[in-house]
Amino acid sequence: MLKLTPEGCHARRQRLIDSVEADVYVINDPRHIFYFTGLFITPLLLSAWGFNALLIERKSGRTTLLAQEMLGGQAREAYVDEVVLYRWYDVSVLTTPDSFGAGVAALDAQIKASGARMVGYESGWLPHGVSITNGVDLNVRLIDMRRRKDADELALIREAVRVNGAGHRAARAAIQPGVSEIEVFDAFHSAANLAFGEAVHLMGDFVSGDRARRGGGLATDRRMSAGEVMIVDAFPIVNGYRADYTATIAVTPDVTANQRRLDVALHEALAAGEAMLKPGTPARDVYAAVRARLDEHGFAEYFTHHAGHGLGLGHPESPFFVPSSDQVLLAGDVVTLEPGAYGSDFGARIEHNYLITETGCERLSQHETALIP
Amino acid sequence: MLKLTPEGCHARRQRLIDSVEADVYVINDPRHIFYFTGLFITPLLLSAWGFNALLIERKSGRTTLLAQEMLGGQAREAYVDEVVLYRWYDVSVLTTPDSFGAGVAALDAQIKASGARMVGYESGWLPHGVSITNGVDLNVRLIDMRRRKDADELALIREAVRVNGAGHRAARAAIQPGVSEIEVFDAFHSAANLAFGEAVHLMGDFVSGDRARRGGGLATDRRMSAGEVMIVDAFPIVNGYRADYTATIAVTPDVTANQRRLDVALHEALAAGEAMLKPGTPARDVYAAVRARLDEHGFAEYFTHHAGHGLGLGHPESPFFVPSSDQVLLAGDVVTLEPGAYGSDFGARIEHNYLITETGCERLSQHETALIP
Repeated sequence: MLKLTPEGCHARRQRLIDSVEADVYVINDPRHIFYFTGLFITPLLLSAWGFNALLIERKSGRTTLLAQEMLGGQAREAYVDEVVLYRWYDVSVLTTPDSFGAGVAALDAQIKASGARMVGYESGWLPHGVSITNGVDLNVRLIDMRRRKDADELALIREAVRVNGAGHRAARAAIQPGVSEIEVFDAFHSAANLAFGEAVHLMGDFVSGDRARRGGGLATDRRMSAGEVMIVDAFPIVNGYRADYTATIAVTPDVTANQRRLDVALHEALAAGEAMLKPGTPARDVYAAVRARLDEHGFAEYFTHHAGHGLGLGHPESPFFVPSSDQVLLAGDVVTLEPGAYGSDFGARIEHNYLITETGCERLSQHETALIP
Repeated sequence: MLKLTPEGCHARRQRLIDSVEADVYVINDPRHIFYFTGLFITPLLLSAWGFNALLIERKSGRTTLLAQEMLGGQAREAYVDEVVLYRWYDVSVLTTPDSFGAGVAALDAQIKASGARMVGYESGWLPHGVSITNGVDLNVRLIDMRRRKDADELALIREAVRVNGAGHRAARAAIQPGVSEIEVFDAFHSAANLAFGEAVHLMGDFVSGDRARRGGGLATDRRMSAGEVMIVDAFPIVNGYRADYTATIAVTPDVTANQRRLDVALHEALAAGEAMLKPGTPARDVYAAVRARLDEHGFAEYFTHHAGHGLGLGHPESPFFVPSSDQVLLAGDVVTLEPGAYGSDFGARIEHNYLITETGCERLSQHETALIP
């Protein structure tokens, strides 16, 4: 299985140390524990058991993973110097049913033991009850760091893109009159699981007919009819990183005239956005380019969301392709473009994923986006 | 779709108010926001965007959901008096990419505005940076409250049990020589999705051959052979509540003699545990009854984990069937029993789910547990 590398994790920790002054950095966001240690904990287990924390000491670079006891052997896969399991329950011995309370006490003790005077922490993640005298908030720095993807991160994103592609092929093959959204979701998910060789955590918009005219929503047991379309916007989490791309597919070729016109407009808008993807381009200019092309076709007023966004450990994340963004594209950004429009007799969106390179961009996703191939 | 009811949520909030003295109760654990408001946020989206908080004012009973902006319309499904969306990003306007920092500021302001002097909070969930002068930790009270299931909770658990049953039937039908674990997982997941009519978040142990002798692990592309067994221990999250039950299935009837002996022992041990399930029984006595029966068959030393545990919004949770538990069964507990043993030429576990009633128990799960039916 593809993983983050020890070298990549070490380089990211060093980048954090080099850019924010603190004696110890305390990381609680599970995505960032993964980012700095390679330990991916599926979000389905996460909230059930208690929190974990990574401590990085500035002077020595020494790393300690404070993990809740049920994580057990999995914690030993982390690239850290030491694993400390705080006690609550280990499937044989119950110390306390209050795993979270036990975690706060253990983290407080661990930080005190480090002797740190200045603590780097994540606002919104460090729990109340951990007493720190001087703290420095790491959030903005981490958001910025995550934009420039390292080689090991890109390998995982490419894998997520590949798995998503298997799902998209299966969904397109499954769509026909009488089939339900959940059956299409299921065909997508089966193909993605088999392509990955493990269970993929899959979410996405799987909406047909009138639901497609509103743009999004999880799959239901709604069965589709001739003349309708289905929007398939899938975002699998594969080893902690994501792909996120979309096709809108006609159930039968007899869709509305507006739906056909929109398909042309979306492909032109996507191409217009793609032509802007290079380091230095303001994110709002990408939005403007996409919108302008939709405007030419009369669809701008129905384009009600972003033109795209960054993705990686989460999504949507920086950079955001909206008018109010003051962000500028960087080499190493991974982004999506996703023009869409939704009206009384049409609804569609198409989306591709891109890596921003030194000179422009590389399109990562290769799926079919034609409404009627 | 089955949901928690406004009446159930109101009764639970009142029970909290009646049992812990505070001016305002601040709930951050997404499972508890669901428990008190009916708003289920899938764990896959959760960590991506920022946190949410429920505020319950003691005097008025007034409820406010402070939700991050991307939650938008979904937040309005919550049974609360008011929804306050804190700003960061809404797919059109970006205020800040730091959703978590924005959430902490908004929650701090909301608590200040309430004028509360004593704040009930969840240790491990309330974030650092929210300034409270006097606080009372709600964790232990919430852990206790969750044990006695209300009617609306039981309806969701029964639905999870039903969905899990569809998966188990499909898995049993799929298991044969040459089939991979991930293909069995996939057959399980497809059947569960179709039974539910929406995508089920499914986790579980899907292990065959030598992997079954270690007891657990996610499905891989390992293909099974004649004479092996597969352990299928599945825990779907269906509308926020869980089922969690297991079968061990022979790939072909020619399994080892120890494997056959173990199957007999596990079924006797399960029956022995089941006979203990009624209000007032110490959890450790349930463990002892299960273990004693495995001991009679010579498998006690290979029984390396709990005899079962509570389940509901999470698992494992109280009560815990282990020797170190001082918990006692209550009417309204939902529990599993799961005897298992793992050795050099055998590995198996069977598991059922039960509701503790006033007079005994009701077995909720109805799946086949025979090794060779």
